[in-house]
Amino acid sequence: MQVVNIGVLGLGTVGSGVVRLLKDHEHKISSITGRKLVVKTVVVHNLEKKRDIDLTGIKMTDDINELINDNEINIVVEVMGTVATAKKYIELLLRAGKHIITANKDLIATYGSELAELADQNKCDLFYEASVAGGIPILRTIVNSFAADRIIEVKGIVNGTTNYILTKMSQNNMSFTEALKSAQELGFAEPDPTNDIEGIDAAYKMIILTQFAFGINVALDDIEVKGINGIDLEDIKQAKGLGYNIKLLGIAKLVNDRISVAVGPVLVPETQPLSAVQNENNAVLVTGAAVGETMFYGPGAGELPTANSVLSDIIAVTKDIVLETTGNRFNDFSREGKQALPDEVKYPYYISLKVRDRPGQMLKITEVMTELNASFHLIIQSEYDDVNARVVMTTHEMSEQQIKEIIEGIDNLEEIEVIASYRILSE
Amino acid sequence: MQVVNIGVLGLGTVGSGVVRLLKDHEHKISSITGRKLVVKTVVVHNLEKKRDIDLTGIKMTDDINELINDNEINIVVEVMGTVATAKKYIELLLRAGKHIITANKDLIATYGSELAELADQNKCDLFYEASVAGGIPILRTIVNSFAADRIIEVKGIVNGTTNYILTKMSQNNMSFTEALKSAQELGFAEPDPTNDIEGIDAAYKMIILTQFAFGINVALDDIEVKGINGIDLEDIKQAKGLGYNIKLLGIAKLVNDRISVAVGPVLVPETQPLSAVQNENNAVLVTGAAVGETMFYGPGAGELPTANSVLSDIIAVTKDIVLETTGNRFNDFSREGKQALPDEVKYPYYISLKVRDRPGQMLKITEVMTELNASFHLIIQSEYDDVNARVVMTTHEMSEQQIKEIIEGIDNLEEIEVIASYRILSE
Repeated sequence: MQVVNIGVLGLGTVGSGVVRLLKDHEHKISSITGRKLVVKTVVVHNLEKKRDIDLTGIKMTDDINELINDNEINIVVEVMGTVATAKKYIELLLRAGKHIITANKDLIATYGSELAELADQNKCDLFYEASVAGGIPILRTIVNSFAADRIIEVKGIVNGTTNYILTKMSQNNMSFTEALKSAQELGFAEPDPTNDIEGIDAAYKMIILTQFAFGINVALDDIEVKGINGIDLEDIKQAKGLGYNIKLLGIAKLVNDRISVAVGPVLVPETQPLSAVQNENNAVLVTGAAVGETMFYGPGAGELPTANSVLSDIIAVTKDIVLETTGNRFNDFSREGKQALPDEVKYPYYISLKVRDRPGQMLKITEVMTELNASFHLIIQSEYDDVNARVVMTTHEMSEQQIKEIIEGIDNLEEIEVIASYRILSE
Repeated sequence: MQVVNIGVLGLGTVGSGVVRLLKDHEHKISSITGRKLVVKTVVVHNLEKKRDIDLTGIKMTDDINELINDNEINIVVEVMGTVATAKKYIELLLRAGKHIITANKDLIATYGSELAELADQNKCDLFYEASVAGGIPILRTIVNSFAADRIIEVKGIVNGTTNYILTKMSQNNMSFTEALKSAQELGFAEPDPTNDIEGIDAAYKMIILTQFAFGINVALDDIEVKGINGIDLEDIKQAKGLGYNIKLLGIAKLVNDRISVAVGPVLVPETQPLSAVQNENNAVLVTGAAVGETMFYGPGAGELPTANSVLSDIIAVTKDIVLETTGNRFNDFSREGKQALPDEVKYPYYISLKVRDRPGQMLKITEVMTELNASFHLIIQSEYDDVNARVVMTTHEMSEQQIKEIIEGIDNLEEIEVIASYRILSE
């Protein structure tokens, strides 16, 4: 049987998983592809570090040239992380005719188009299924199964760390700080969790999903990103009382054929399937004009789930090598897209306020709302502390422009402070 | 732009949807495939029948030879239904070099391997994504994204009619007869609903899923099929009280590397994602050794969802035509598989009994259980009617062999009747 040689760049969690799975499922992979897939060379930063996987027969090196200059290597799996160095290496490898598989969402979200073009020029495949929602095969599904449909909206829970934190807060009555600590202890959150809890990680994934679903390139700056840092347990409870779970959602949708992408805490009705996604799991809900709502659910990260997505890419490349059809883009769909205007993206909102408890306060708030032509659906007042009340409102649908003005207007009032303003998903 | 000509065999709900979507999404499809896809000829049984879709420029005929003998036609979509005639037509079309797309689950479940071989010999594609779970792209996902993983279990709600009936019974306190009538009025159930409510339709789909997930061919006779005909509302309520929803599930799993496939009502814990799948929706939960649990959820039927799956097949064929890679099997994975033995498939069970209400009855039941070495987890007695009590038990894990013997043993007792015995899924 002919051999396809694989190089691996980086031997962290995912890299180790790839080496392990290739060995464990060797026979099934051969029976499907008609090739024997062999990890020939692994490039690591630190050759001295002890690894707890079987590396028999694999050349270990710290020199990237061992991949670039080895004509026997067909495919390189980049799982080293970072953006600048990974980009440089991948460019060199593509120029040397290596097919590339990467799980590097930051890199693909930022330089995906540029690298796809370079891959084209060199007749190379460039796949990155593992970059979004680890174990869920969402990118290839959009490419293969929604090609004939017009996708209207893609929304999802694409960050496992924040979903774990929100689940713990909601189910175990933990504060944000306690839940974050628990996530770190269990390895679901990094020692420096900034990218996760600020929503940046989710935003990168939404950039890639938007590209696949709508064929439109957006940049991080085009996305309104809110994280869950310091989210108040009391708001989670209030939302629950109203029939919602607060989830960190990425939402990409077409509004009057313009694109709107946002990441932030959203009140999801308990009756919706996204609402039931718990702990570190991910889920992506795709709404097609023809097919309606479909949801894809699974583990968002982890050694083996992510490695499995890398392996599905390796098999796809191998099939392309066998059929001599390499060099076709992972996603062919591309169109011009304009950003939606702030006054055409409309949602109902949940607003939570800390209000000094004295007569006339409600009047001041309603005056601001009336001035801006916004109306409530519901107001609930409860205790905040000895001298302050918590006022929670849900509004009718309003534009981003309107909610911004309302928040500013209320924040300018004396003795009233906005704690939170979140979108509400409709039933 | 080069044209790919399509023939359509049958113009019912799905056929009309295909014609409609091809027109509606013409530009997107062309931009992805680089080809103009045109419906050239439609073969129908009754040429006189009025159709409420735009058929301008399409040749209508009742003669299959207009497809077989037309060299310009590349792809034929079979959505006429039936088994014998559809099989004969598809064989003639494959021999004439036409690529085939079908939504015909009965046909594929029964003659899939035979037809796949004929397609191979003629270098033709044979795709049938729409045959299982209408709008959910589950087959292609298994092929593409689980190729490197070892699937341990596939289970799901693959029949929309029965899920609609069970949802209505559970949520609206309807009897089985009332819920079935409501389903028929809304078009979710056929005038003759036998195949759906007896579980046959679900069993055909499980045959196809088993082939894709495990590479193993099973026949209808290999599957233990129970339907929901006459299922008792009281059992649905009792299950709910215990924290379960009763769903008609297909379950295919490996037990000691032998295959077990069953269709029947199952108690699904409310905490599991399958439990929340409501109305006519479908969902398939795939458990991979590496990836863990992933779930795919969406509409199981309907004109546009199903047509969308047909279109994803059309696009896949068109890409193969462009790349000159037609004639590769939809699913390459194939292995020998033995049936699991009745004493190695183990579940806890829910048993519901109608018992003449007099002293000593419980003793008789427990004697049967003790004799067969089976133990309860829980027993609840409630009123059945004036002279009978309902006794509901949940058992510890037992084999199919054991539960069969227990049911026989209890049924042989005087004045005691078994109403139901259902598997319970673990948390």
